[in-house]
Amino acid sequence: MRNVIGILGGMGPEATILMMSRLVAATPASDDSDHIPMLVDNNTQVPSRIAHLIDGTGQDPTPVLVGMAQKLASSGADVLAMPCNTAHSYYPAVAGAVQVPVLNMVELTAQAVARAHPEGPVGILASPAVEITGIFAKAFAALGRDIVYPADRDRVLSAIRAIKAGRIDTALPILEEAADEIATSGAPVAVVGCSEFSIVAPQLTGGPLALIDSLDVLVDACVAYATGSVAASNQGAKLAK
Amino acid sequence: MRNVIGILGGMGPEATILMMSRLVAATPASDDSDHIPMLVDNNTQVPSRIAHLIDGTGQDPTPVLVGMAQKLASSGADVLAMPCNTAHSYYPAVAGAVQVPVLNMVELTAQAVARAHPEGPVGILASPAVEITGIFAKAFAALGRDIVYPADRDRVLSAIRAIKAGRIDTALPILEEAADEIATSGAPVAVVGCSEFSIVAPQLTGGPLALIDSLDVLVDACVAYATGSVAASNQGAKLAK
Repeated sequence: MRNVIGILGGMGPEATILMMSRLVAATPASDDSDHIPMLVDNNTQVPSRIAHLIDGTGQDPTPVLVGMAQKLASSGADVLAMPCNTAHSYYPAVAGAVQVPVLNMVELTAQAVARAHPEGPVGILASPAVEITGIFAKAFAALGRDIVYPADRDRVLSAIRAIKAGRIDTALPILEEAADEIATSGAPVAVVGCSEFSIVAPQLTGGPLALIDSLDVLVDACVAYATGSVAASNQGAKLAK
Repeated sequence: MRNVIGILGGMGPEATILMMSRLVAATPASDDSDHIPMLVDNNTQVPSRIAHLIDGTGQDPTPVLVGMAQKLASSGADVLAMPCNTAHSYYPAVAGAVQVPVLNMVELTAQAVARAHPEGPVGILASPAVEITGIFAKAFAALGRDIVYPADRDRVLSAIRAIKAGRIDTALPILEEAADEIATSGAPVAVVGCSEFSIVAPQLTGGPLALIDSLDVLVDACVAYATGSVAASNQGAKLAK
């Protein structure tokens, strides 16, 4: 018995595929049927979260995200996941629109960091959109932890845009410098808090920082949920709120 | 304007992810919205095609495949694709159950081979299930071409099972030997006609044979369809039948 994971994807498509690959790799399997079934809306036409949250000019993606969630749930998904940290700015609307639980990548990541690194400030490598909406700030404040962003938002944003355009070599040094800057604040750990950065995370040293990839945390939660190794009712109630 | 590709996936899940990756790689893009939207039913619980077609013991997967196609179409897919050659044994039922066109990977591959290699027999590296149902035989016969399978069906099947279990090192030498055997028949080219073999195709030399990967042919057709570079109405009518 396998629960079906519904994925609100396409933000961007490569990050969605990366999540699916990590889900497959994380599942012990000797045949197709051992793998976790997934329904994936790899919707590359979700209005830009960056344009809406940073530039303040773009269309609000909320109705599209809500529609995707409802369609996935009505098509048979037992639990939903969004492999896009920035899209979690719209999490309350998405989770409120469906009966099934929606895994909260941001909160789950804060909990994973707190378990592995219980002291000190936490660096966040994420979109300036995430910084503006304060979703990681809120999740870590609930655990009594301070967070640190790199100072130059435009530079971090340029790394995201470079990865979306396939220019990984442009993005990597920006992220290494950002990690070094975060380390000077005394943080022992940084969150890879943008699924575009998850694409390059295996090539990222993080300098002196330990790195915790939010996409890995989401994948682990999906595997636990799909294979029933987490009590579904409690987990659902806990995660959907 | 991008048409939405609906993918009947999960047969197996890695082949589905590979198709999605190749679709992303084949699409010139500078941001998410340039990419092709995909609705993916990565259904790992489709009854085994091998058990049904070879062993004769398994449940008929037709109703599940038809249900997947109908759900993808009603969820907004403009065209459907199945990244599983063996599942094309059920193509008439699937294509007959929906109004949208269903790309026929097997026929498109036969056409691609005929364009690139207009003479001689054509080797087929595919599941014995595909050999039994004769789908490649029919597609190539329509173009006046003979096909050649490796003699030892069990050995080819063991390679598929090894890849599904993650044992690529077991599968590769079996496929290289099969390619050598096919070459002795005078075939200049072989079809990589199992999407599990597509996973290892980049590592496969094929010995003296040119290799045409059916998954690449399907991806090219999807890109052409999604970007409107193929006249949708004609293509649809042609491909759905």
